[in-house]
Amino acid sequence: MNEGEKKLEWAFTHMKILQKIKDDFEKRKPFKGINIALSIHLEAKTANLAKVLKIGGANIYVSGSNPLTTQDDVADALRNFGIPVFARRGEQESEHLENINKTLDVKPHIVIDDGGDLVHLLHYERKELLKNVIGACEETTTGVIRNKALENAKLLKFPVIAVNNGKCKHLFDNRYGTGQSTWDAIMRTTNLNIAGKNVVVVGYGWVGKGVAMRARGLGARVIVTEVDPIKAIEAYMDGFDVMEMKNAAKVGDIFVTTTGNTNVIDSRHFELLKDGAILTNAGHFNVEIAMDELEKEKVSKREVRQNIMEYTLKNGRHIYVLGEGRLVNLACADGHPIEIMDLSFALQALSAEYLLTHQLENKVYDVPEEIDIKVANIFLEANGIKIDKLTKKQIDYLTKPH
Amino acid sequence: MNEGEKKLEWAFTHMKILQKIKDDFEKRKPFKGINIALSIHLEAKTANLAKVLKIGGANIYVSGSNPLTTQDDVADALRNFGIPVFARRGEQESEHLENINKTLDVKPHIVIDDGGDLVHLLHYERKELLKNVIGACEETTTGVIRNKALENAKLLKFPVIAVNNGKCKHLFDNRYGTGQSTWDAIMRTTNLNIAGKNVVVVGYGWVGKGVAMRARGLGARVIVTEVDPIKAIEAYMDGFDVMEMKNAAKVGDIFVTTTGNTNVIDSRHFELLKDGAILTNAGHFNVEIAMDELEKEKVSKREVRQNIMEYTLKNGRHIYVLGEGRLVNLACADGHPIEIMDLSFALQALSAEYLLTHQLENKVYDVPEEIDIKVANIFLEANGIKIDKLTKKQIDYLTKPH
Amino acid sequence: MNEGEKKLEWAFTHMKILQKIKDDFEKRKPFKGINIALSIHLEAKTANLAKVLKIGGANIYVSGSNPLTTQDDVADALRNFGIPVFARRGEQESEHLENINKTLDVKPHIVIDDGGDLVHLLHYERKELLKNVIGACEETTTGVIRNKALENAKLLKFPVIAVNNGKCKHLFDNRYGTGQSTWDAIMRTTNLNIAGKNVVVVGYGWVGKGVAMRARGLGARVIVTEVDPIKAIEAYMDGFDVMEMKNAAKVGDIFVTTTGNTNVIDSRHFELLKDGAILTNAGHFNVEIAMDELEKEKVSKREVRQNIMEYTLKNGRHIYVLGEGRLVNLACADGHPIEIMDLSFALQALSAEYLLTHQLENKVYDVPEEIDIKVANIFLEANGIKIDKLTKKQIDYLTKPH
Amino acid sequence: MNEGEKKLEWAFTHMKILQKIKDDFEKRKPFKGINIALSIHLEAKTANLAKVLKIGGANIYVSGSNPLTTQDDVADALRNFGIPVFARRGEQESEHLENINKTLDVKPHIVIDDGGDLVHLLHYERKELLKNVIGACEETTTGVIRNKALENAKLLKFPVIAVNNGKCKHLFDNRYGTGQSTWDAIMRTTNLNIAGKNVVVVGYGWVGKGVAMRARGLGARVIVTEVDPIKAIEAYMDGFDVMEMKNAAKVGDIFVTTTGNTNVIDSRHFELLKDGAILTNAGHFNVEIAMDELEKEKVSKREVRQNIMEYTLKNGRHIYVLGEGRLVNLACADGHPIEIMDLSFALQALSAEYLLTHQLENKVYDVPEEIDIKVANIFLEANGIKIDKLTKKQIDYLTKPH
Repeated sequence: MNEGEKKLEWAFTHMKILQKIKDDFEKRKPFKGINIALSIHLEAKTANLAKVLKIGGANIYVSGSNPLTTQDDVADALRNFGIPVFARRGEQESEHLENINKTLDVKPHIVIDDGGDLVHLLHYERKELLKNVIGACEETTTGVIRNKALENAKLLKFPVIAVNNGKCKHLFDNRYGTGQSTWDAIMRTTNLNIAGKNVVVVGYGWVGKGVAMRARGLGARVIVTEVDPIKAIEAYMDGFDVMEMKNAAKVGDIFVTTTGNTNVIDSRHFELLKDGAILTNAGHFNVEIAMDELEKEKVSKREVRQNIMEYTLKNGRHIYVLGEGRLVNLACADGHPIEIMDLSFALQALSAEYLLTHQLENKVYDVPEEIDIKVANIFLEANGIKIDKLTKKQIDYLTKPH
Repeated sequence: MNEGEKKLEWAFTHMKILQKIKDDFEKRKPFKGINIALSIHLEAKTANLAKVLKIGGANIYVSGSNPLTTQDDVADALRNFGIPVFARRGEQESEHLENINKTLDVKPHIVIDDGGDLVHLLHYERKELLKNVIGACEETTTGVIRNKALENAKLLKFPVIAVNNGKCKHLFDNRYGTGQSTWDAIMRTTNLNIAGKNVVVVGYGWVGKGVAMRARGLGARVIVTEVDPIKAIEAYMDGFDVMEMKNAAKVGDIFVTTTGNTNVIDSRHFELLKDGAILTNAGHFNVEIAMDELEKEKVSKREVRQNIMEYTLKNGRHIYVLGEGRLVNLACADGHPIEIMDLSFALQALSAEYLLTHQLENKVYDVPEEIDIKVANIFLEANGIKIDKLTKKQIDYLTKPH
Repeated sequence: MNEGEKKLEWAFTHMKILQKIKDDFEKRKPFKGINIALSIHLEAKTANLAKVLKIGGANIYVSGSNPLTTQDDVADALRNFGIPVFARRGEQESEHLENINKTLDVKPHIVIDDGGDLVHLLHYERKELLKNVIGACEETTTGVIRNKALENAKLLKFPVIAVNNGKCKHLFDNRYGTGQSTWDAIMRTTNLNIAGKNVVVVGYGWVGKGVAMRARGLGARVIVTEVDPIKAIEAYMDGFDVMEMKNAAKVGDIFVTTTGNTNVIDSRHFELLKDGAILTNAGHFNVEIAMDELEKEKVSKREVRQNIMEYTLKNGRHIYVLGEGRLVNLACADGHPIEIMDLSFALQALSAEYLLTHQLENKVYDVPEEIDIKVANIFLEANGIKIDKLTKKQIDYLTKPH
Repeated sequence: MNEGEKKLEWAFTHMKILQKIKDDFEKRKPFKGINIALSIHLEAKTANLAKVLKIGGANIYVSGSNPLTTQDDVADALRNFGIPVFARRGEQESEHLENINKTLDVKPHIVIDDGGDLVHLLHYERKELLKNVIGACEETTTGVIRNKALENAKLLKFPVIAVNNGKCKHLFDNRYGTGQSTWDAIMRTTNLNIAGKNVVVVGYGWVGKGVAMRARGLGARVIVTEVDPIKAIEAYMDGFDVMEMKNAAKVGDIFVTTTGNTNVIDSRHFELLKDGAILTNAGHFNVEIAMDELEKEKVSKREVRQNIMEYTLKNGRHIYVLGEGRLVNLACADGHPIEIMDLSFALQALSAEYLLTHQLENKVYDVPEEIDIKVANIFLEANGIKIDKLTKKQIDYLTKPH
């Protein structure tokens, strides 16, 4: 077994839900005759999703959703399993786009997307393929925002299931998954002490909540910046400092952007940063830290350690960017913990099948509750957890006037 | 100034949002000619809401929403301010019902309800008053459930604003408010050490999350019971033990029920409890712990300390119930922290005015977002917190296809 | 049973270690013929210690160690049990001193002291009694510091066991006991929300660590001030802000002094405080907040709620002092949790007997390790906890050269 | 600059205390003419210590203190700087011993030891070198225990400064350093979700406290095993489950041994473990998990991922050992965070000089307080933290009888 195959096996050992689904798909072959284009950060867990879909009968092409998050040994393992893979770690932006494009050559009936790139391409550049598409599943907040923008503009040409919005996804992946893996990445890349550091978490959505929670768990002092007054009060009540970025910029030791938005740290802030400040991004796209503006403003740059780029500014200060401002948990580590992705990918697999078996409109749908409940119950069972059931009396109490 | 008036003043000093609203109402008198029936746990914060509504022009009658949560000195202070109050701490169930009923004698245009009793009475026993009613505001999850049951049964006769569902309410009151005040109550009533105790939190909604979070913050080991598999996974990922009540019953030292449901601890469990187990309820009604069943099963009972009733069971074990199984933070302490109620009651005041100025259907409405945002912004300002604003570029990024 | 007796019974139910010791003392009567003077904050737990010593044969006189911490119903319960008590809540300073003095009229063989007042009196004002004294047990850091000052000055006239330094005392009482009860007191006295508040903890010894830990557990943002650079780094690594008091004074919402020192908040700071700042003390003496200086500098003062005094300063700001600057957990609540005092008072009881059965020099002694271990093991057993034992192989590994 | 040199530079950028010491040593050359043998886990931080000593004038030989913790690129960087290094990652036990031995060929005046191997060799196998030795500094609890065993047996031939016992070392390194880096290692090696896992921490000394604290911070449920009843109560009060290993073995998902003792997980426990249990060691020697017994009992083993060995037992279950049971933070990651080692190594550098400038007996000494205070103050200054100073009045209060 090569290193990539070992990674797949280790991950699959801990993907208890996907194991169950695999056993079921193996018997039923629900994707027989179905072409699937899948573009997700290419590491061991994703690879197992691709394998399970193929085992379920699908003809599947795979690419990575980010130039810096592909693990080449994993890609090889997938190729050994007979799945065409178009991805290479460190591919240039143009090669990356080309690779995503190639995934669509499978002429997909189903699209499994991460960030909305496949859906975007289908709507703007590969329109000839739209007629085959039954629907798509989208993994991220960013992608859902993009898809909804299409829907609102009446441009969406097939149904999308917002897997990201599934409870078994967004309640766990964005919070516990990114929360843990962001710090895994920062620690292994920098070897710095987190305890006592001023950590600035930009945005207090689910991802920000998770990143802040784990930062505190590691002993950091956490500062939150927000644009939403209610989330700001949540951060305040959770015991974090809340301030404007222009002030946070001056005191932060480590920054983590989690907004899904653009330019949350940009030329308004670079010169305010302390010497030695570390910038990382946990959001989907590498636009949260305005890398383009930083490249223009810098005096010089050099790689000082693997995945750490030092930028020297005009004021003489040095700032450090991890993983080129791409999502740090994937660029500098192995992405979400396995069990978290097991929850997400179980939703993906079952949502993909749902698209086949239901007639849906060209809208963005939430994950059907039945799928969420099913996945949750398998998770609990796999972890040996039993919960209570409502009694007849309790159901009446909750549902009848009294 | 008597003790009750001191309490009101101390509370009002810390109700910065209501202060602003008072200043505004004082000028505009939006409730001129409006009758309001208000039934909420009668302590200093509620009293300030009543005062502000009266200052805003209302003719207001007040009762307590629970026989054990009225503070008599506060009631007196309100009477001194010229507001009729029908409530007495320790009133019998029949007197309590009578008192709530008397509140309705104001012939309310607006109802401010807490648990749904006023709305219930209006629909079933005081139907003759329905014609005057413009609408109601409901403070609790329990009340909203009851009102929705009415709505679903097509029985609801006026619009209800579910103040409970306002972000500035349920995100803070149910979690931080009940979280803190439940433990305030348990500590002051028992003088027991919380650190190291096995605390069983029944239900992992917002209230349960808050109670569990603060239990951990006090050093307890927390066990969660749930009926919803997804909330069960949340509790698991938050690092709590999750188990069925029949097992939790055997190991718990302190129990807190937070479900809004009935009989979550009942005759199925009493005999399983450890000698010395302490039962408390943080949900709205005193049905979560089945006090009626406990009364039947007990061998004897006696009060062993203020607000602590000892029940001796057939198996010889003693179990302790705080505050008669009524919501412990109000029965055994002063209810939610002041600033939390400031958020809730600001929503109440503005929602009550909203009912007057908008034509609504006979449905249960969420709090209008504009009210939530307004209240949140006043809170931030009062606490000296500034937050960021989206730039033009960021708004475009979030809203336009790309 | 009166209210005080109920309190004693409730407490004793949860003092599992003292129960065991009582059973043993009842049989052996180790204090037969022994006079004991005991001066500790007079509430239910202390009263049980006094009872157990009397049951063990002692002739015991009791006073309170602080004018504001005596609970009168508890004092009555003790009198009903036949123990002379010299204490009254709210006694003036002169009456307090007189009362402490009266305790010594028992002509003590053993002194059980809390803060060093009895020992001080014996050395400076009641020297004629010194000849009877076999030794003393001291409960607090403050008292131990005073006793050591006597020892260092070669003035100490009998052995003192520093019960405070016992592991079963200082590791739990100062940290978990004060940590919890300080916040119990602040919450019940103010009804304010702790989450989000800036809490300034003055001093980061065991008490400060406990107070800070629980403040965070309640959602506060914690600032620590220190004079010891190593403790300052500990606070920093624990994720707290560390700053000089002159800066902390400007941002704190609630202050808790925990240093055992004098004037840690004084006229250098009062005018810097925010309007509404709340000052509390968790250290033994009411000198940490310089109440004398505050009285001089104030423009006016008034009680705004039970146990809350409002001071108006020249700059027009209001600051609030809880419980007259005396230790807030006793002045405004019921002191340490019962189980914590059970550990401390078990050490007291066994240390008192140790003084009788061992020939000691006129020094300050630590609690003998055998007593600490004995008490710890009873605690574990009472809580159903089993721990491992070293194997022969492990003992060799730890003790022999290799 | 090669990869090793980059690592050194990155680390040194964050070693603010050692930077100051380097500047001073560079001027004063306190180690001129002094031979130093240094054997510590060979990665970037240690290498900087070696460099600073050489810059201070020393003639220094270096080896690694563990066969699996040497980073070869770092060793090369040190060689480029002109320091002889005897170490290779993955060296066999015999080669490792040989390499340590070679370090002594420098004929050391000063020994800087980590685990006691150099001191042991000097006393038992290289006695001819003893005459040159002025003294040693020991980095670990394990080494101090071994040195004290020598001292107690009257065999110690030169003074040893127990750097491990320095406050700036043991209060931070063992707790925050191992706490963080252990989880860094486990996360990066397994990619598993920590939230919700049952983590068994074996031992609740400083290392155990740190590992448990961070496990909780990552969302785990923590179980502690202990042999000391007082530490067991501490773990209980900190909210952790405490139980015997024979019971913990049955429920743990991840085990971390932190005792400094041998066979804390051994053949008494292997068959009790759950299928999939993960065993890791954070103590100095690879004897805490009895790898020898495991090798005998296993049916088969294979490497399933880098640094993860799967053992199949007779009962069919699989258990996973990380980094061969060697200290996981060094075998599977980069050791302690840089700033933590900066504190430790500052003590090392100053203690080494102290040996030269003071006449000491053949005993194990604690780090002189002046060194601890000096290092702590530099740390605070480097992090921009100011603390308070005692006033004259306060010093009097603390030191004079009153």
